[in-house]
Amino acid sequence: MDPHDTLYLRIADTIAASVRTGTLARGDRLPSVRDTARREGVSVATAVQAYRTLEDARLIEARPRSGYYVAARPPRAPEPEPSSPPADAVEVDLGRIGAEIVRLAHDPDHVSFGAACPGEQLFDQDRIRRTLSRTVQRHRGLLAHYSVGPGRIELRRAIARHALGMGCALDPRQVTVTNGCIESITLALRAATRPGDVVALESPTYFGFLQILESLHLRALEIPTHPRTGLSVDALRLAIETQPVRAVLAVPTLSNPLGACMPAGERRRLAQLVAEHDIPLIEDVIYNDLAEHDDKRRAVRAFDTTGHVMVCGSFTKTVAPGIRLGWIDGGRWSDRVQQLKSTTSGGQTAVLELALADLLMQPGHESAYRHLRSTIAARVDEARGLVAGHFPRGTRVTDPPGGFILWAELPAAIDSLRLFEACLAERICVAPGVLFGASGRYRHCVRLGVGGAWDETHRDALRRVGRIAASMLPAAAPRSEAMALT
Amino acid sequence: MDPHDTLYLRIADTIAASVRTGTLARGDRLPSVRDTARREGVSVATAVQAYRTLEDARLIEARPRSGYYVAARPPRAPEPEPSSPPADAVEVDLGRIGAEIVRLAHDPDHVSFGAACPGEQLFDQDRIRRTLSRTVQRHRGLLAHYSVGPGRIELRRAIARHALGMGCALDPRQVTVTNGCIESITLALRAATRPGDVVALESPTYFGFLQILESLHLRALEIPTHPRTGLSVDALRLAIETQPVRAVLAVPTLSNPLGACMPAGERRRLAQLVAEHDIPLIEDVIYNDLAEHDDKRRAVRAFDTTGHVMVCGSFTKTVAPGIRLGWIDGGRWSDRVQQLKSTTSGGQTAVLELALADLLMQPGHESAYRHLRSTIAARVDEARGLVAGHFPRGTRVTDPPGGFILWAELPAAIDSLRLFEACLAERICVAPGVLFGASGRYRHCVRLGVGGAWDETHRDALRRVGRIAASMLPAAAPRSEAMALT
Repeated sequence: MDPHDTLYLRIADTIAASVRTGTLARGDRLPSVRDTARREGVSVATAVQAYRTLEDARLIEARPRSGYYVAARPPRAPEPEPSSPPADAVEVDLGRIGAEIVRLAHDPDHVSFGAACPGEQLFDQDRIRRTLSRTVQRHRGLLAHYSVGPGRIELRRAIARHALGMGCALDPRQVTVTNGCIESITLALRAATRPGDVVALESPTYFGFLQILESLHLRALEIPTHPRTGLSVDALRLAIETQPVRAVLAVPTLSNPLGACMPAGERRRLAQLVAEHDIPLIEDVIYNDLAEHDDKRRAVRAFDTTGHVMVCGSFTKTVAPGIRLGWIDGGRWSDRVQQLKSTTSGGQTAVLELALADLLMQPGHESAYRHLRSTIAARVDEARGLVAGHFPRGTRVTDPPGGFILWAELPAAIDSLRLFEACLAERICVAPGVLFGASGRYRHCVRLGVGGAWDETHRDALRRVGRIAASMLPAAAPRSEAMALT
Repeated sequence: MDPHDTLYLRIADTIAASVRTGTLARGDRLPSVRDTARREGVSVATAVQAYRTLEDARLIEARPRSGYYVAARPPRAPEPEPSSPPADAVEVDLGRIGAEIVRLAHDPDHVSFGAACPGEQLFDQDRIRRTLSRTVQRHRGLLAHYSVGPGRIELRRAIARHALGMGCALDPRQVTVTNGCIESITLALRAATRPGDVVALESPTYFGFLQILESLHLRALEIPTHPRTGLSVDALRLAIETQPVRAVLAVPTLSNPLGACMPAGERRRLAQLVAEHDIPLIEDVIYNDLAEHDDKRRAVRAFDTTGHVMVCGSFTKTVAPGIRLGWIDGGRWSDRVQQLKSTTSGGQTAVLELALADLLMQPGHESAYRHLRSTIAARVDEARGLVAGHFPRGTRVTDPPGGFILWAELPAAIDSLRLFEACLAERICVAPGVLFGASGRYRHCVRLGVGGAWDETHRDALRRVGRIAASMLPAAAPRSEAMALT
């Protein structure tokens, strides 16, 4: 990355942090571009670039002949309360609804908020195509070559280099390329547990994790989680001390569905906790590159000194969704992970590995992330506004520092499975909350993914979801249109 | 396929069958090209093409000014005896040697007979490259599109069409695309069994199967197998009736390592047996396209009327080794298979799926198989001759009707693990027999894969393996060079 590039991003990040911590309040006027340039010792052009980045992310706005101001945010709903799941491990039995959601979420006949995936419009398709075409041309022999083993070293090195951005110094030889993050997590669990074991995880959690546990005959122990600071390390410690927890599975950055990010201190405590009890933390870093601030991108693995953190990632949400490759560094379980991958799934396609390595090493790669983050941030803000304006009174919604998922807690009387079905009848797909826990909690919640296509159809569909939800409230009248200002 | 293409192949097959059954003996003179053309009612050009195909396969040879003769075969060793494994199921514990073999078998520093893979020289690399490049150009949007579900319908249709050649009428919607046949078999086992269950399989069997069983905490029950006719259905019936067998895993065509092919009648009985006992047969058809005769290509699934046969395949051994895609039709377990694939591994890369579909539908595809079969057949014949000529007296070796694997049974005094190590010291890799059973049998056997590169280095290395083996015989003198005529 060239130094100029780093400079303007550093300045933008500093200002963004001031906004988030409240040092700069909504509506406050920012220092002029010239003042900022002087204070930071950079050129005016660099300061302008920093301000433009913040403007793209809708954090600040220019007012003609007046300067830059911290942007007013759309109407807000309060955030959900921390969760309090049951204290005992349970067998998982989600049935078929998870698979059904995934299918519907990708069905072009539906306006979909069901998926946690970015739309193809958000990526530079030509860059990906050019890179893959070039790789195929250069390595035609590879197409007739049977590949075995943990993956091409070129890609494993690129992944290790990428992980430096999360504060992790990985040994490329310990990295295994997989068929995506889902496979990475499955391998991690298979390497570190046996059927019947207890796995602790966030509550609410990604239903895909619960499906993996179910298929591996593992029991789920849900741990209280805060919508902003994530997994409660204290609650986890208590669980580990009182129950036979054999592994912890967590998404410390932009958890799914809450979008929570654990503070650095908690990450350090988490790394110490699992080391102390000699159990693995399976850390999913799939969303780390979507976090707005560098400090939230820092993985728990960065604090791991004993090899107890197995780190799982992928680039399908951030670089090339259509190149199905993920990775895992299994820490002290790496040998076992590599063996399981090779004996039960085999290697991945080598030309794809080389193409992805090339994409990761290209200059401009970092600014593609920036673009993705700011586009999504603006959209998530808009979607939060629509929820605040059109969902029933009493709805709470998360305010994630990145990513494309919102978690809405509706009034307790609303059954999200019924809401899910009523929405389907209008060709809209949402993910019902009951899927995100192993014990029937979150029945009144929905997860809304807004990473796909986004236009007036989607805004309108989100308003309709709110109206349908309101119509399900037994006594109270639905919120009047007049109140819905957004 | 054009009709001319079919005609010459049909004639070649008829003659090949006469040779194999002994109607035409080694050294017999064939009818002249003109006579054959007249008798079959085809042009002389077609008859010439049929003879050329047989010549390429080294089944016949032209003698100047005299005509075509059935080729003399190289010196032969007797075939191994049918196996008699223990009657009880056992936990599998192969240790790390399987993974080590796989690694060494693909290490360019070794002359390798360790793998069961064809070399890249055997494929039309340009055809694969052109097809993939074209697909990437045409479907660039797909590279930014997150793929879910059981695979592109274009590929699943091409697979169903391909399966017609094995006598199977598959429903494309029931086919799931996987990361290769290894993953297909893992999914089949996970869908149909639970940890601790007993799985019956051929003995000897592919060590990769044993590794999968080990990783899934399944117990192996080895079934007696004949080197030519494969799995003993009678022995399997007895096992099923007396033990809690929950699934059968078999390679009815060109089993690994024996290269056995079950006769059609036995296939039918096998399909009936599993239906009767309501357990699945997991049928691996990865080598079916390499069988010399059509009747051996017919899958057990073709005789299945109840959905008890789960069929697993891939094209990495026959079409494009570097495009890591396999498939499974899970019969009555299809839903469960699709769910497991989606929840623990995710979809495959869509552009690869489309490229493979294109490759499978191209004309000329069938003649690429023919070419592969005849090239390999000639080489296997040569390798058998080298074993007969240079391995210790008393060595038995298989005579598989296709494929690139030989299984040699050495004198009982020879420990193939020691042989493996002694060969490694000379940078030669063979697969020691002890890997191919769950109970320490086959210690005196080796599997020799001759699908990779093949030149004088390889011939010489095979002779050296024989000499090293002979030097391990305690008392007897090594076979003299004078006896080694090949």
